[in-house]
Amino acid sequence: MLADHVLDGLRVAPGKAPRLARRNPGDTLGLPGKEEVAELIRDHAERTSALQQRLWAERSRSVLLVLQGMDTSGKDGTIKHVLGGLNPSAVRIAAFSAPTAPELAQDYLWRVHARCPARGHVGVFNRSHYEDVVTVRVLGLADEDRVARRLEHIRAFERMLADEGTVIVKCFLHIGRDEQRERLLERITDPDKAWKFDAADLAARARWDDYMLAYEQAIEATTADHAPWYVVPADRKWVRNAVVAELLLRTLQRMDPQTPPPAPELASLADLLRA
Amino acid sequence: MLADHVLDGLRVAPGKAPRLARRNPGDTLGLPGKEEVAELIRDHAERTSALQQRLWAERSRSVLLVLQGMDTSGKDGTIKHVLGGLNPSAVRIAAFSAPTAPELAQDYLWRVHARCPARGHVGVFNRSHYEDVVTVRVLGLADEDRVARRLEHIRAFERMLADEGTVIVKCFLHIGRDEQRERLLERITDPDKAWKFDAADLAARARWDDYMLAYEQAIEATTADHAPWYVVPADRKWVRNAVVAELLLRTLQRMDPQTPPPAPELASLADLLRA
Repeated sequence: MLADHVLDGLRVAPGKAPRLARRNPGDTLGLPGKEEVAELIRDHAERTSALQQRLWAERSRSVLLVLQGMDTSGKDGTIKHVLGGLNPSAVRIAAFSAPTAPELAQDYLWRVHARCPARGHVGVFNRSHYEDVVTVRVLGLADEDRVARRLEHIRAFERMLADEGTVIVKCFLHIGRDEQRERLLERITDPDKAWKFDAADLAARARWDDYMLAYEQAIEATTADHAPWYVVPADRKWVRNAVVAELLLRTLQRMDPQTPPPAPELASLADLLRA
Repeated sequence: MLADHVLDGLRVAPGKAPRLARRNPGDTLGLPGKEEVAELIRDHAERTSALQQRLWAERSRSVLLVLQGMDTSGKDGTIKHVLGGLNPSAVRIAAFSAPTAPELAQDYLWRVHARCPARGHVGVFNRSHYEDVVTVRVLGLADEDRVARRLEHIRAFERMLADEGTVIVKCFLHIGRDEQRERLLERITDPDKAWKFDAADLAARARWDDYMLAYEQAIEATTADHAPWYVVPADRKWVRNAVVAELLLRTLQRMDPQTPPPAPELASLADLLRA
């Protein structure tokens, strides 16, 4: 549903900066429209499910989809709408909110590594180790030197995961500041959405430019052929969903997982059952 | 109990090969003798315990002691005799035998990372991720290219742990082939030791030179200022214990952990209790 050159445009090439300020979070990428896209996403989910079934049968590789973005950028919504169509048995969602005391007693990658997808699974990170070089940096919980070293660690960590069989795709859900205001207002005024409101979101919003700079640098430092970043226009939920659905399908298509061939003895077992 | 230059001689400097074949596993390092050393180890344990108490109170850093070596080299014995004298509440022993099915479903560092010591703890690895570049290599379960990449991963992994507060010391318990024969024979002939015998040990012994080459290269590739390898002469158990006890004590002395100062309000709380 999205042409190669459109996806290429969203992908941040190794060594390049994403230049977030120059990207339009309201872009519709030439997609036909909300209704048509919902239909296409359902169709994608079927194809993705079939490939995922083979990934499970093959049981040698895994997929890791990392979702990052400012508050209200739609991490939860993407998981619901894009991953919801797949077989939940083979999907592992891991959400990383503020670390607990036992997590803080270990290095910052410890809790992340623990929840990396096992062979055969599609893992989704709702927030991730990128909080430890973005939020932690903006809040002044780690100095610049420590952040620089962490970016090195993260590069090496993802290299290791990739070498050992995990295919990594990272999405920055790119929402505009105006759209965020609307969504935060909804959370404040709509009783059904109020449970999602957190006053800390307003504090983060007040440091918008700091966050954009931290993301800009973290994405540039960690985009790689084996772990590419995509900047996903996220002001329109259906565009965001279409892009992530397309990326997931294409990732599995490129992996081309193979169901293992039937064991030779199966033929004689069939004879046994028929006897 | 061991002079600086003796320990320096056991340490493998960054970028250097350990040259295992040139080292004498029966070396006594000028130590006084078995009985005197047992006394010294008890004395060391007391001093190490006091420092460990402060490491626990400080709760910001950890120690990781990695023990590797051929079968019968004394990994279990070292833990019993050297770590046994410490407060077990702050010691975490992790033994890595053949990986289980869930462990094999993840990358090889997953189970290792999961058991890294939390801040305030002394962690001991009885075998470790080095099995994945030594045993796995000798058994042909990973090709040379994969082993080379794993050595890169391990360097980066230990760098990350060190950056985030873990002080790493790695010991290769160096036993000679003749001494191993005696110890294996004991396991076969002494009914009290027979439970430790595993026929696989004989298969590993038959590939002694392959193991030595794999260790030689793994140690050279991964010894670093922040994660040094020591080659510990291990034909004599008391020498082996003395070296590891000394390394552990010196590591904690260099870290010089600090008990946090009493909170200022404690003075008035004392007044309250006295009232």
